[in-house]
Amino acid sequence: MDPTDPQTACFEAGIKFGSLYHQFAGTPVSPDSADSLARAMEESIENQPFCESVTVEVLTDELAAAIDDGAAEYTELTGRFLDVEMLIDYEGVEVLARMEMEDGYPLMAVADVQS
Amino acid sequence: MDPTDPQTACFEAGIKFGSLYHQFAGTPVSPDSADSLARAMEESIENQPFCESVTVEVLTDELAAAIDDGAAEYTELTGRFLDVEMLIDYEGVEVLARMEMEDGYPLMAVADVQS
Amino acid sequence: MDPTDPQTACFEAGIKFGSLYHQFAGTPVSPDSADSLARAMEESIENQPFCESVTVEVLTDELAAAIDDGAAEYTELTGRFLDVEMLIDYEGVEVLARMEMEDGYPLMAVADVQS
Amino acid sequence: MDPTDPQTACFEAGIKFGSLYHQFAGTPVSPDSADSLARAMEESIENQPFCESVTVEVLTDELAAAIDDGAAEYTELTGRFLDVEMLIDYEGVEVLARMEMEDGYPLMAVADVQS
Repeated sequence: MDPTDPQTACFEAGIKFGSLYHQFAGTPVSPDSADSLARAMEESIENQPFCESVTVEVLTDELAAAIDDGAAEYTELTGRFLDVEMLIDYEGVEVLARMEMEDGYPLMAVADVQS
Repeated sequence: MDPTDPQTACFEAGIKFGSLYHQFAGTPVSPDSADSLARAMEESIENQPFCESVTVEVLTDELAAAIDDGAAEYTELTGRFLDVEMLIDYEGVEVLARMEMEDGYPLMAVADVQS
Repeated sequence: MDPTDPQTACFEAGIKFGSLYHQFAGTPVSPDSADSLARAMEESIENQPFCESVTVEVLTDELAAAIDDGAAEYTELTGRFLDVEMLIDYEGVEVLARMEMEDGYPLMAVADVQS
Repeated sequence: MDPTDPQTACFEAGIKFGSLYHQFAGTPVSPDSADSLARAMEESIENQPFCESVTVEVLTDELAAAIDDGAAEYTELTGRFLDVEMLIDYEGVEVLARMEMEDGYPLMAVADVQS
């Protein structure tokens, strides 16, 4: 069957999460550069259709700990350094979705659907 | 409200499309290297959870035309060189989704939801 | 033969250009979000070893023109929207390198080597 | 001063390494999909100017060990799963360069310059 509006809204939310993650994973990042990267991630994904807002927090404590363990003064961005929340509005259906670490894996999930 | 299984299945389909697009957009590509890139795109995204199958076709005629117009012997992968079809299975809900060019823009859409 | 210090400095400059380009190409960008993206590109690449400074200018006029031509309100970052200048210092050898459009192709080149 | 041909050859080698790494880092990969990804990496980067050959080995033992430690059946491509060797030829100057793990960090280095 054709998708319903809430199903399409969830599809659109998924697109934004996949885009954000795979566009920016691997970026060199340090506690000092975390803020500019978080802003760029938010503003670039907010360009995409039906995307009302994106909030990215780079976990600088986790970042500092990972850098302490290694030989370099920066590391590569990956899911364990990120909390992301997004609000999608497709034809009046609002979808709230989040990415958070769970069991060492960055889990992306729909938190709420309002139609 | 919490998402239904069909809504989560559509969210998962969206993640795969965003991932595929933003992981591989920008890759140097020519008609000769199109096939290995298409296989890598398919097999890498098929690793993701709930992803039954991915079919990627790189439009080599479009590719050849774009290269003819330019100064180099290759170009960068972007949506206008791609047809993608994906099958997601989440808790028995099957979602078929596609990416195709429409009005010069790579449109990702859910084609069918079976629950 | 083993590389000389100026040769290694040029190798390091090349790494930074390839990194910057292929990390960020494909990012959704509009005139409004161009500034945050440029700052993130600069600060993330400045994390890399031997990288003294990076200056990124996103060509917002070119961006606006490309968006006018299309169906969406944003486009994907590619070389034709970018001017980049970088200063590398490896063991006292300074390399200045630039990326600029030339014949419709984003040309990366070493402008000056001081040892 | 303007760069010499060997310096430009080393700059070109650096571009290819940065491109390869930041284009493909973050790709979902498993032992089963490692081979198609390695071929795509080789063939895509060989499109770039002055690039004679690229050899990519994905370290499937390392990959399998990383996957055993985690909750998923795949992981994200990063430097610790890669050995890369490249041959650049710029105006008759041949540069051999490699990326290998050293002290837990993927070190890219020029191995040999022949002019």
